[in-house]
Amino acid sequence: MASTHIFSAYDDDLKFLSRRISEMGGLAEQMVGESVRALVNGDTALAQKVISDDVILDHAEREIGDKAIVTIARRQPMASDLREIMGSIRIAADLERVGDLGKNTAKRVIAVQSTGVPRKLARGLEHLSELALVQLKEVLDVYTNRSADKANAIRERDNEIDAMYTSLFRELLTYMMEDPRNITSCTHLLFCAKNIERIGDHATNIAETIFYMTTGAQPEGDRPKDDSANTVGAVTE
Amino acid sequence: MASTHIFSAYDDDLKFLSRRISEMGGLAEQMVGESVRALVNGDTALAQKVISDDVILDHAEREIGDKAIVTIARRQPMASDLREIMGSIRIAADLERVGDLGKNTAKRVIAVQSTGVPRKLARGLEHLSELALVQLKEVLDVYTNRSADKANAIRERDNEIDAMYTSLFRELLTYMMEDPRNITSCTHLLFCAKNIERIGDHATNIAETIFYMTTGAQPEGDRPKDDSANTVGAVTE
Repeated sequence: MASTHIFSAYDDDLKFLSRRISEMGGLAEQMVGESVRALVNGDTALAQKVISDDVILDHAEREIGDKAIVTIARRQPMASDLREIMGSIRIAADLERVGDLGKNTAKRVIAVQSTGVPRKLARGLEHLSELALVQLKEVLDVYTNRSADKANAIRERDNEIDAMYTSLFRELLTYMMEDPRNITSCTHLLFCAKNIERIGDHATNIAETIFYMTTGAQPEGDRPKDDSANTVGAVTE
Repeated sequence: MASTHIFSAYDDDLKFLSRRISEMGGLAEQMVGESVRALVNGDTALAQKVISDDVILDHAEREIGDKAIVTIARRQPMASDLREIMGSIRIAADLERVGDLGKNTAKRVIAVQSTGVPRKLARGLEHLSELALVQLKEVLDVYTNRSADKANAIRERDNEIDAMYTSLFRELLTYMMEDPRNITSCTHLLFCAKNIERIGDHATNIAETIFYMTTGAQPEGDRPKDDSANTVGAVTE
């Protein structure tokens, strides 16, 4: 009886971690979507909401870290459970960073608001964030299902986001060159585009962590990267 | 005898972690210094070295994480030792990010090289990186001495880096507005300045982790931030 009790308490600890991670993922997705919406619409109230929400993610990351450590110290888990718990810490850190990137975009809404975001650039930013959000959503689904194969497939797809970022980077430079009055706001939009591009990198990190959690191995081969192919040098991480 | 043996093996584990973190810190500092030197001098060979060195930091972070977890699982440490070990994981992650930021600056050397970096901007970037490196060096010293008071003092000083970044941000915008031919290279320099500014944030994170490791408490009050004070809106993290 006692051992069943311990076993199920342990199981509860693991469930707690994965539930909290899914919640963090949902909030991080929402913050990213809202930050881009606030930017495109010049909606400072929505931007302020994103900035406030970030505290919730920070708190959740800390809570997951504390719970993970207490679980390791108390239950002395076997190798695969240990990977599971360590993976939680890593994924929580990546999601916390995604929230920070959303917050950073939200902080730029005021700086950009006075000039507004030209329609074509707005569409570009929205498209980029859609790609990043699909990537994030899929990796969170893979986390729920623990599929190593699918984790690897997501990792391959970050190139699409990088290519879209490069094209947006070029377009922003063109706007700046056409009219110096665009320079300040376009600079902020460049940082926003970079923030969104980096969300793809965090989704890739999470995919790699899930691969490690389920297989105990690091994914094979380098992460696909293609920095040198573009002539303007829109350097991705 | 047996318990002495276990105790000293445990002590060795902790020493291993702190030695590896100090080594990571030394390499991260070196990479940041070299990346700015490469940028200012258009030295692509040095930039390439920084890019290659990043693999060493990535490897060290993984090694520290693995060692930390094995130590927790094997020795079931008490609260203060647990904080020490957890702190190692966090600090290693921050130092790995500092290396990434150095690498990202190094990657931009080629894009900037054709136009070169104007003397005044070069001095600004060097000054910013000196501030960030002092911050990083001091926080690594505090890590060696485990002083909670000093950790808190470092945390206060990030504002100086933010102010310097804001002034550099303004200057870069001015260069772009004066001559559209500066736009591409100045955009890369903006990202480089941002990379350096963020090193200060990681030093602040490390200071907070050390405070937590030594006291078991989070530092009091919000992190000092002053984003709204500047009119160009050089948004810091």
